[in-house]
Amino acid sequence: MADIFERLLKNYGPIGQHRERAHGYFAFPKLEGEIGSRMKFRGKEMIVWSLNNYLGLANHPEIRKADAEGAAQYGLALPMGARMMSGNSNNHELLEKKLAEFESKEDAILLNFGYQGMVSLIDVLCGRHDIIVYDAECHACIIDGVRLHPGHRYVFKHNDMEDLEKQLQRATALIDKQKAGGILVITEGVYGMAGDQGKLKEIAELKSKYEFRLLVDDAHGFGTLGKTGAGAGEEQGVQDAIDVYFSTFAKSMASIGAFIAGPKAIIDYIRYNIRSQIFAKSLPMPLVIGNLKRLELLQTRPELKEKLWDVATKLQKGLRERGFDIGNTDSVVTPIYMKGGVEEATAMVMDLRENYGIFCSIVVYPVIPKGHIIYRLIPTAVHTDEDIQRTLTAFSETKQKLDAGAYKVSAIPDMAEA
Amino acid sequence: MADIFERLLKNYGPIGQHRERAHGYFAFPKLEGEIGSRMKFRGKEMIVWSLNNYLGLANHPEIRKADAEGAAQYGLALPMGARMMSGNSNNHELLEKKLAEFESKEDAILLNFGYQGMVSLIDVLCGRHDIIVYDAECHACIIDGVRLHPGHRYVFKHNDMEDLEKQLQRATALIDKQKAGGILVITEGVYGMAGDQGKLKEIAELKSKYEFRLLVDDAHGFGTLGKTGAGAGEEQGVQDAIDVYFSTFAKSMASIGAFIAGPKAIIDYIRYNIRSQIFAKSLPMPLVIGNLKRLELLQTRPELKEKLWDVATKLQKGLRERGFDIGNTDSVVTPIYMKGGVEEATAMVMDLRENYGIFCSIVVYPVIPKGHIIYRLIPTAVHTDEDIQRTLTAFSETKQKLDAGAYKVSAIPDMAEA
Repeated sequence: MADIFERLLKNYGPIGQHRERAHGYFAFPKLEGEIGSRMKFRGKEMIVWSLNNYLGLANHPEIRKADAEGAAQYGLALPMGARMMSGNSNNHELLEKKLAEFESKEDAILLNFGYQGMVSLIDVLCGRHDIIVYDAECHACIIDGVRLHPGHRYVFKHNDMEDLEKQLQRATALIDKQKAGGILVITEGVYGMAGDQGKLKEIAELKSKYEFRLLVDDAHGFGTLGKTGAGAGEEQGVQDAIDVYFSTFAKSMASIGAFIAGPKAIIDYIRYNIRSQIFAKSLPMPLVIGNLKRLELLQTRPELKEKLWDVATKLQKGLRERGFDIGNTDSVVTPIYMKGGVEEATAMVMDLRENYGIFCSIVVYPVIPKGHIIYRLIPTAVHTDEDIQRTLTAFSETKQKLDAGAYKVSAIPDMAEA
Repeated sequence: MADIFERLLKNYGPIGQHRERAHGYFAFPKLEGEIGSRMKFRGKEMIVWSLNNYLGLANHPEIRKADAEGAAQYGLALPMGARMMSGNSNNHELLEKKLAEFESKEDAILLNFGYQGMVSLIDVLCGRHDIIVYDAECHACIIDGVRLHPGHRYVFKHNDMEDLEKQLQRATALIDKQKAGGILVITEGVYGMAGDQGKLKEIAELKSKYEFRLLVDDAHGFGTLGKTGAGAGEEQGVQDAIDVYFSTFAKSMASIGAFIAGPKAIIDYIRYNIRSQIFAKSLPMPLVIGNLKRLELLQTRPELKEKLWDVATKLQKGLRERGFDIGNTDSVVTPIYMKGGVEEATAMVMDLRENYGIFCSIVVYPVIPKGHIIYRLIPTAVHTDEDIQRTLTAFSETKQKLDAGAYKVSAIPDMAEA
């Protein structure tokens, strides 16, 4: 007989194992001050590339005003209860209407949080005979939704259309055999780590050969891609082929909550059956009002998206010119691929923060294979040319040190918060 | 080959099937005005018994002030990103510290939302060899967490200690056989529909006979039970036997978010490994500040809990004296059990709303067996004696009509919103 707790404490996991040296610095850092390209970290000003505040709405004066007024008028408690029971309001419905229109869908349903919204969305769409075919690099919330599925699920290699076809053939054959069930394909508009768009156009074309419904998580495409900012579907000219469109408000909208858009009859079905919404509290009113205002600015201020892309283009061009490998991003998400061990990566991050004032996210082993390092930079509409130049210089200099072996240290230094 | 959408549209589910007549009235109603015992529904004033605003904090002037000031100072966007990446702050940590102290636990972790917090909590605690033993009436978020578990799960009849022992014996035998794994028992502090407390004391006593860890979802006990309001564990004198304590902020705290409290080493493990928190945005700062203030009032204003219990006692006593069956609630949650068909229940709800100005929740077939009706009344600290008296009178009169067959109608009337 084992004790659950004893087992847990044997292995704190990929990041948790370093917690005694890393807590408050490499993990759970505190960025202080108002959200922008410059924030304070442990008292020092940093150029911050870690926040998905793509359009700069987080600290936009009109947003700050709407947030303050909404909270002053309603408080943060209203409404109470789930939407279906006692948590509905005209504002919730208005936001749904505007989101549906913006995404060129018949209807939309607002979600109290993106993660649980996606988990329950997959759960509510798929019965036990249905087969889920999903991209290998889908976000954790999609994976958890797929894990809830009692039926078959086939994973296809990331953005590999040949493999997707193979899985669609397997799925179709199984459904024919079991004489029941349909296929749901799941991909993302933009993959948040590598920045490459999901191949929505190619997937849409497969609809002429295979029968399936397409669910797209457009967390990073919403507000950043497409002529009007409607996302990756608009960008690739296949918005109509997306049967169920999902986006969180946690990125371009700089808020919390999320939504699903699609045909009215299906949204109605979801509305009455999606567990995480039926059994949990509605999105608070000031957040709904704040999101209405965010959506308005997103739609009426194209200059924000232009500025975002201006920053992203300068950053990506600058990195490429300096010989950095930024992979095949075709969004504003900007990864930098390097080679090095965990200790070297750690020492480099410290150098970037302590001596160059650059704060960005980093991914190392065991999340990715040993010997690889990925930096991830998120450009926003509020970054300046100076931010970009200083960052390019910092990466050039630290990369030289990395290549010269200057970051060879024997252990991760103790940087835990006092 | 079936189309997923076609299958969905064949059956809109227990409540969805009535949506064309029910939407906006029986489902997705809008309660307007500030949260209190009196709110507007379709323009009419109602005495509202549907909101878990137990302590009346939702609209407390000090809370409204804290909510407004927090949003004015920080906006609703800050911080961005997950706690582990870029979403941490001193206020988040302060709230964790205060929650741990209040629950007499070593440490606590704040959650961005209760539902997904519980789902991921169960997921992070249990490995494939572990066995989950859970009460049959656990909330949907617990059920979804259990559904994610790849190993065995045994359900015990609601609050039936004999059956729990039987399941513990089964689980122990299986673990002995597979030579791996431990047992996690899950129950609730208060069952939100029937109002009966989970038998924490009896479960705690079983720890001398069986080896298991105990997880308690105290959503309805937090703030309403125990000398200090610390919940069902304190009330039953077994707080120490709860290994992992969970509560949402959606009830007594009149907010969103949630927390887990327990031993420091385990909370640390959870902090670094719980998927819905690692991969989703942190709780916004004004909600953290609002929750700090709510916790302060919950701890320093015992008169709020006293008033809640005064209202609940008067309501429950009044109902019992009038011969109503309110089951075996030993919390403030007040169910009323009646007999009747779905159409009768619907007509009675309409009479209560339209002619008596009473708004409360109702549960009918197929959620409960055919021929049964459950009304659920949630008393709060802001209900008045007049609210109680009018409600008792209304239920007495409508119950007489129900028993006399006055609500026999052939179909659910069309009350859908224009």
